[in-house]
Amino acid sequence: MRHFISVNQLSVKEIHSLLDTAESLRNENKKVNDQIFAANLFFEPSTRTKMSFIVAQRKLGLEVLDLHEDISSTRKGETLYDTAKTFESIGANLLIVRHHADTWFEDLQDQISIPIINGGAGKAEHPTQCLLDLLTLYQEFGRLRGLNVVIVGDIKHSRVARSNANALKRLGAKVSLCAAPGFEDHSLDFPYITIDEATKKCDALMLLRIQHERHTTNSFIDDYLKNYGLTKEREKRMQKHAIILHPAPINRGVEIDSDLVECERSRIFKQMNNGVFIRMAIMIELLQEWGLLNENIIEKREKTVISV
Amino acid sequence: MRHFISVNQLSVKEIHSLLDTAESLRNENKKVNDQIFAANLFFEPSTRTKMSFIVAQRKLGLEVLDLHEDISSTRKGETLYDTAKTFESIGANLLIVRHHADTWFEDLQDQISIPIINGGAGKAEHPTQCLLDLLTLYQEFGRLRGLNVVIVGDIKHSRVARSNANALKRLGAKVSLCAAPGFEDHSLDFPYITIDEATKKCDALMLLRIQHERHTTNSFIDDYLKNYGLTKEREKRMQKHAIILHPAPINRGVEIDSDLVECERSRIFKQMNNGVFIRMAIMIELLQEWGLLNENIIEKREKTVISV
Amino acid sequence: MRHFISVNQLSVKEIHSLLDTAESLRNENKKVNDQIFAANLFFEPSTRTKMSFIVAQRKLGLEVLDLHEDISSTRKGETLYDTAKTFESIGANLLIVRHHADTWFEDLQDQISIPIINGGAGKAEHPTQCLLDLLTLYQEFGRLRGLNVVIVGDIKHSRVARSNANALKRLGAKVSLCAAPGFEDHSLDFPYITIDEATKKCDALMLLRIQHERHTTNSFIDDYLKNYGLTKEREKRMQKHAIILHPAPINRGVEIDSDLVECERSRIFKQMNNGVFIRMAIMIELLQEWGLLNENIIEKREKTVISV
Repeated sequence: MRHFISVNQLSVKEIHSLLDTAESLRNENKKVNDQIFAANLFFEPSTRTKMSFIVAQRKLGLEVLDLHEDISSTRKGETLYDTAKTFESIGANLLIVRHHADTWFEDLQDQISIPIINGGAGKAEHPTQCLLDLLTLYQEFGRLRGLNVVIVGDIKHSRVARSNANALKRLGAKVSLCAAPGFEDHSLDFPYITIDEATKKCDALMLLRIQHERHTTNSFIDDYLKNYGLTKEREKRMQKHAIILHPAPINRGVEIDSDLVECERSRIFKQMNNGVFIRMAIMIELLQEWGLLNENIIEKREKTVISV
Repeated sequence: MRHFISVNQLSVKEIHSLLDTAESLRNENKKVNDQIFAANLFFEPSTRTKMSFIVAQRKLGLEVLDLHEDISSTRKGETLYDTAKTFESIGANLLIVRHHADTWFEDLQDQISIPIINGGAGKAEHPTQCLLDLLTLYQEFGRLRGLNVVIVGDIKHSRVARSNANALKRLGAKVSLCAAPGFEDHSLDFPYITIDEATKKCDALMLLRIQHERHTTNSFIDDYLKNYGLTKEREKRMQKHAIILHPAPINRGVEIDSDLVECERSRIFKQMNNGVFIRMAIMIELLQEWGLLNENIIEKREKTVISV
Repeated sequence: MRHFISVNQLSVKEIHSLLDTAESLRNENKKVNDQIFAANLFFEPSTRTKMSFIVAQRKLGLEVLDLHEDISSTRKGETLYDTAKTFESIGANLLIVRHHADTWFEDLQDQISIPIINGGAGKAEHPTQCLLDLLTLYQEFGRLRGLNVVIVGDIKHSRVARSNANALKRLGAKVSLCAAPGFEDHSLDFPYITIDEATKKCDALMLLRIQHERHTTNSFIDDYLKNYGLTKEREKRMQKHAIILHPAPINRGVEIDSDLVECERSRIFKQMNNGVFIRMAIMIELLQEWGLLNENIIEKREKTVISV
């Protein structure tokens, strides 16, 4: 793995290895001892993913370079390639990129001489979200094979749907989709079911964010929860062991009743927590692959909390 | 003290303890030795308070997570609670929040499992500013009891006025208010006096920022200094020992003559300096309360300045 | 050198000393061992310069305070002086300032008690860019005396042109200018030549960014490359040893054919790399001058890369 662009590029064995590393990092304390600079180039709004990467970077002892799109040279029309090359030139050792183009990485991956991580590509891919979702499912069920997973919401505009459906299928899960009219994507080869079927049969319900600021009228939104979202009534009909996932940010009262966000079956904030360790695992893997980490030398920072 | 929300919640003894700690931190070098993440969630513009917190955090060796409101998920309509919970989930150990709602903390303080510091709440509270003002007064006079303190300016829209008037009264100071017509807040139980009375009788004149971009016409502003502000003439009539405070940012030539900003009785930049140590003291206090600092182990970083 | 405001203020010996220090820093590992805070106050958009300073600061072990203009108190109308004084008051030991006023530093340099570095002053000065350009030329040619350097582009609006032309002349280079109609600045006492003369005779071609968002119509832009820019045809007629410089961001296809950005004679990304070491050298020089670095004590961080 030279760059981390898509879960499709990973073998099943590589996926499991990353999930194992992530899980182990929760209880270990591993830090680089030399200055390695990670640059976060987010050209779309992000709290969760970007901050999760920053926490992951600092936990690993990486230096963080944080591009703020709004005050940067991209305002002056610089290409993504030139921005990436600039960061490489000034000393970045690792790039995290989120960009609105579906295939922004195609131009970069052969031309940039440092590892690149896909932090979100248009409507196409969100592979770190995919891995953290997989980790959450494994934590819950210990397996994916045979699991009924339903992805619910704005399938058409969601990079999470695309990344997850394919990965889940490869790992043996039974994937169904559920979407309101106009939100379907028929290029994805998975069956569509209704929200009532979805809630009854699933082991895991993966809700997506409805990007209502883009797609729909107010009256649509008012009816969305009742017709296509996870209401309290539907939640009651879910299987006892079934869980709820959501990549967030959440539209409370649109795709999910506000009272369910932290209900017993919700793993929404657990997902966020898993995201930090997944991102640490991916960065370690890439830095090792590029020879930036020396496996023989391990710094075990002591856990002594000290002060005052 | 589980959260630091209001000076009202502190006993007089607790206030003195925080001021003492702040003062002692000026000459000591205390740092946490483990990774503790502080997240700064400022949903309103801030240079001074936010940067002051960041300096305080880095002096204590804390990791800093800095939310930039304009490019974050709050653009996507996420609630403050969900943003706060997100930061908790990804590993923040401490939240600093500034928000335009007067009571934003009411929803958070029982639901978030990490300490929260109020960095400014609408027009209601600015408790870290209050403590740094108190510290500045104690440094000057060694006491508050009996001190004549006049708070001058846009009382109605000022969270500083509200926080300070009540705290000063509890600590024994004699508090008066002074406001141009329309800037009074009659819900505060303190006497109003004129700017001429204020300057003559005060031991400390606490000027507030006039938020002229919101409230007033150009002609109003033109006359403001002359009628309601601190002119050079008024400054000359102040008592010899009297001092001037201002939370900044300053409108030079509006609430204060530009030449007086750094006059001998001004403590304006001293206040800013005090703010760093007050914020360090509050963070230490909270981290101890939550068991995140181990009092028995002290790291004394050596003061050797080293390089080249 | 109390502040670093202009290359004009430096003697030739001081320039050479800074270039030597920069070059040596490439292979050394020098870090301050105490907390020294550098504050980056950029009031104009910047990726390259600001990020380059941040990398330089972190490589030296400095703490970084990063003002984000859009969410700061400058929105509230605070003066540059008050902002600078605020950072001094809260503990900044060093200021880097970029501001749209040509002479912003005049008000600051005698009133602020910490060293200031000019990160860009309106259309007048960009001295750190100048030094990194000089370093790039010395690396290439080992000398500046007698070198034919042509500065090409929007001379009138460029702070790089102004800073560089004067410094190059003092160091013995033969400087010519080349500009499309309307982009000349006749206050600069250097000869103007055509782009065809420029490409044929130069040892180094210093291209400037055309700020087309401000100056020109679409039809102008369409013709710009052909009439005034570096086309592939012109590049072929350059001397064998001649090199291309550009401060970036680049308008691909406007001032330079996109295919030439990384051609063999381009030093554009090398310049960016040099910028980090130049900025480290300047900061070391200033911190020493102000007594913030102790020359006798050297921390040699070990280069052991450690982890996992």
